[in-house]
Amino acid sequence: MRHTTFETDACPIARSLDVIGEWWSLLMIRDAMLGVRRFSDFQRRLGMARNILSARLKHLVACGILETAPATDGSAYTEYVLTEKGSALLPAMVALRQWGERYMFQPGEPRTHLLDRECGQAPSPMHVQDREGRIRSIDDLTLTYDRPAQGNNP
Amino acid sequence: MRHTTFETDACPIARSLDVIGEWWSLLMIRDAMLGVRRFSDFQRRLGMARNILSARLKHLVACGILETAPATDGSAYTEYVLTEKGSALLPAMVALRQWGERYMFQPGEPRTHLLDRECGQAPSPMHVQDREGRIRSIDDLTLTYDRPAQGNNP
Repeated sequence: MRHTTFETDACPIARSLDVIGEWWSLLMIRDAMLGVRRFSDFQRRLGMARNILSARLKHLVACGILETAPATDGSAYTEYVLTEKGSALLPAMVALRQWGERYMFQPGEPRTHLLDRECGQAPSPMHVQDREGRIRSIDDLTLTYDRPAQGNNP
Repeated sequence: MRHTTFETDACPIARSLDVIGEWWSLLMIRDAMLGVRRFSDFQRRLGMARNILSARLKHLVACGILETAPATDGSAYTEYVLTEKGSALLPAMVALRQWGERYMFQPGEPRTHLLDRECGQAPSPMHVQDREGRIRSIDDLTLTYDRPAQGNNP
């Protein structure tokens, strides 16, 4: 179901969801993060009809999350790779994964694990922190509409 | 559009998206985090038809993300509040917000700001970090299927 656009919404969450708010967007971005680059590989992993996958890849390219690139093996295939904007979804992706690991699996149930190549451990649990590194909960936070960021909100 | 269920998928991202993968889920959870509790307030903010909103609230209750509670003012209204599982989406929500702040707004464009009540600053930018606090990119990470977590993967 298509919703009203949030393109001009003042809430950054709503605007983000305007481009990546459907389940398939994050799965495609996940696969791109894992190194999937070709149409046929996305298709095999996601099991979408060709025309649907094609439209979705185009959407992610139009949003600046993926970009096309010549095939790494010199063949005529088009490949799809994450832009800097797409790669910058890693923290959101890992936070969502950690939530899923914790709440969507029974203890000991087999699952995939995201591990650090160097130390072999899972990344640290992600928390919302203030500038001094203290963990903050939703009760510690408040929402304002517009206070212009003056260099203190990188 | 409804997709094949990811309920038994080995990927925690897919399983998470199975319950919160539609744009409206995260907007409703966002609003619950901001203190919205009543049907009429969700409706006013989200502009959904009553029957659709009702089904979506039921879905989030069935998934254990919201729970119903008696009205805080003693009236007969049912209120909807986040469970611990729902509140635990805060890091994913803030990571998504920070991505939106950075990529979905022009510099200086008015928007909402999430600020710390105590220091008045935005939370720190969220990063994926290893156990020593080093920032990790996708190239530093690898995916394995199932290596049982033995106490090193809280």
